[in-house]
Amino acid sequence: MINETIQLYPDRPGVTLTTYLLADSPELLNGKKRPAVLVCPGGAYLNCSDREAEPVALRFAGMGYHAFVLRYSIYTLDHPEFNLVNATDMVINPHSTYPSPMRDIGKAFLTIHEHADQWLVDTDKIAVCGFSAGAHNCAMYAVYWHNPVITDYFGAPVSQFKPAAAILAYGIGDFHLMVKPYSNAMLQAVASAANFAYLGTRNPSAELLDTVSPARQVTASTPPTFLWATAADVLVPVENTTRLATALAHAGVPFEVHIFEEGAHGLSLADPSTAGSQQDINPDAAQWIRLAEAWLRKRFLLPILEKPAWMQD
Amino acid sequence: MINETIQLYPDRPGVTLTTYLLADSPELLNGKKRPAVLVCPGGAYLNCSDREAEPVALRFAGMGYHAFVLRYSIYTLDHPEFNLVNATDMVINPHSTYPSPMRDIGKAFLTIHEHADQWLVDTDKIAVCGFSAGAHNCAMYAVYWHNPVITDYFGAPVSQFKPAAAILAYGIGDFHLMVKPYSNAMLQAVASAANFAYLGTRNPSAELLDTVSPARQVTASTPPTFLWATAADVLVPVENTTRLATALAHAGVPFEVHIFEEGAHGLSLADPSTAGSQQDINPDAAQWIRLAEAWLRKRFLLPILEKPAWMQD
Repeated sequence: MINETIQLYPDRPGVTLTTYLLADSPELLNGKKRPAVLVCPGGAYLNCSDREAEPVALRFAGMGYHAFVLRYSIYTLDHPEFNLVNATDMVINPHSTYPSPMRDIGKAFLTIHEHADQWLVDTDKIAVCGFSAGAHNCAMYAVYWHNPVITDYFGAPVSQFKPAAAILAYGIGDFHLMVKPYSNAMLQAVASAANFAYLGTRNPSAELLDTVSPARQVTASTPPTFLWATAADVLVPVENTTRLATALAHAGVPFEVHIFEEGAHGLSLADPSTAGSQQDINPDAAQWIRLAEAWLRKRFLLPILEKPAWMQD
Repeated sequence: MINETIQLYPDRPGVTLTTYLLADSPELLNGKKRPAVLVCPGGAYLNCSDREAEPVALRFAGMGYHAFVLRYSIYTLDHPEFNLVNATDMVINPHSTYPSPMRDIGKAFLTIHEHADQWLVDTDKIAVCGFSAGAHNCAMYAVYWHNPVITDYFGAPVSQFKPAAAILAYGIGDFHLMVKPYSNAMLQAVASAANFAYLGTRNPSAELLDTVSPARQVTASTPPTFLWATAADVLVPVENTTRLATALAHAGVPFEVHIFEEGAHGLSLADPSTAGSQQDINPDAAQWIRLAEAWLRKRFLLPILEKPAWMQD
């Protein structure tokens, strides 16, 4: 395995791509390239959660895919003094506001393409997998990857940005749902801070909300998408997922959805490998990663020989 | 993750312990130690197969356990000229003959104990997991770990060698079964070479075969053991597994056995992540790793808080 952390911009130590590159072997793919999954943790555009980072990458690596964790631009990288208690003092952070975080995914794609021969990555088969705000970031990338907001910004060919699939866990699909008041003060504080971190305003226009709502931007160029969520999520309402699914259906994009009735926001893999407490363990929701594996396998076949090498003609 | 390869003896570059140490985080176990699984690949004491190494370690890492791959002493490390064609020219290799390979597991245990505080390994919960010859090596260690052949050799306290569990995949349990003639010339060639590499003689005594047969050496000090195999295995007859299970039952050692009707020898995880060809994929047998996970979870609970840290009293 090559496990290293690459800083994506010389002047910004917190924005990194960590590799989990599987060792090749004559006994395995013998020099042939593998698909890869790029994991974007959640954390309300305020943090990147460790619970949705390395353990998830290892699960995809266990499937035989190269994996990456992208720690994209978030508010606290530039404002480490941030705390929910002083959240009313937030200032606009051009790194955490739209479209910066989704451009970080573009930068990660360019980096992976650049190293593809060395790392043995099949660049036609790179999936993005995000959680919560990370799922929003991935969904934004999935709808904007071919748009000048990304391609012109980097001045690179559109082919270098193309994601093959998106896997979205309890993500924000429609930002109009996120600016409604919460009855719970803690949830309100988190949502308000997250919204300011990403939108850069306390009073977003309907146009801005449309722009940052993947469910309102899906086209036929959006890659096949796997979505899961819990109906009981009180932080990111499950309609974020159903609305995005509706948009994918309308656009004719292949997709799969699994909504579990119970379970809080932020379960990650919902098993002991990602649990900060027993409340993060939910055997029903934990089925999602196997469902995602089966779904991904349909389009991310490994280039495995039909017969052993010594039996070939 | 800390992924590094440690040479176990200064003068022997091929005998190595590779770490797959999970990153700790305040969001995860927050400084508490984790169980670990030490993986021993198979390869007839002639090689260590990559198909039974890193991909398996990653699967255990995905469960939330630290993982290690041990490349123990095998014949070809000292005799790289070996080929099945010239197998009749083999000479005795004191590194690959009993008891050297099982002592390498002891050396790995000492190394893990030495770094346990730095690596956050719970040394009361280290399992060994082996495949084929690697399963034999693990089974030998499981029956001899407290014996002077290991403890006196290293002059270290017996507590530093104690394995908490053994997971054995299509392993050799009774060497008397391995010296019988095969009807297939290729299998005979592999078995003869493997036997010479490990026994150091073409004519082993019944006493030597008894000594190297875990099924004949099980005691109440043997750790809980999970065994799996395929009934159709033509290289290592499945009676190796049933005889070892019988011995564990007789000694009152907790154990679990899964024997799948079909499937060749050497399936590893039996899924695309470890397949050298499509013949290495077997959905029935592939269930073993989840059965092993459930079995291991009963004794390798992660120290996860009941409630989130911020909700503690």
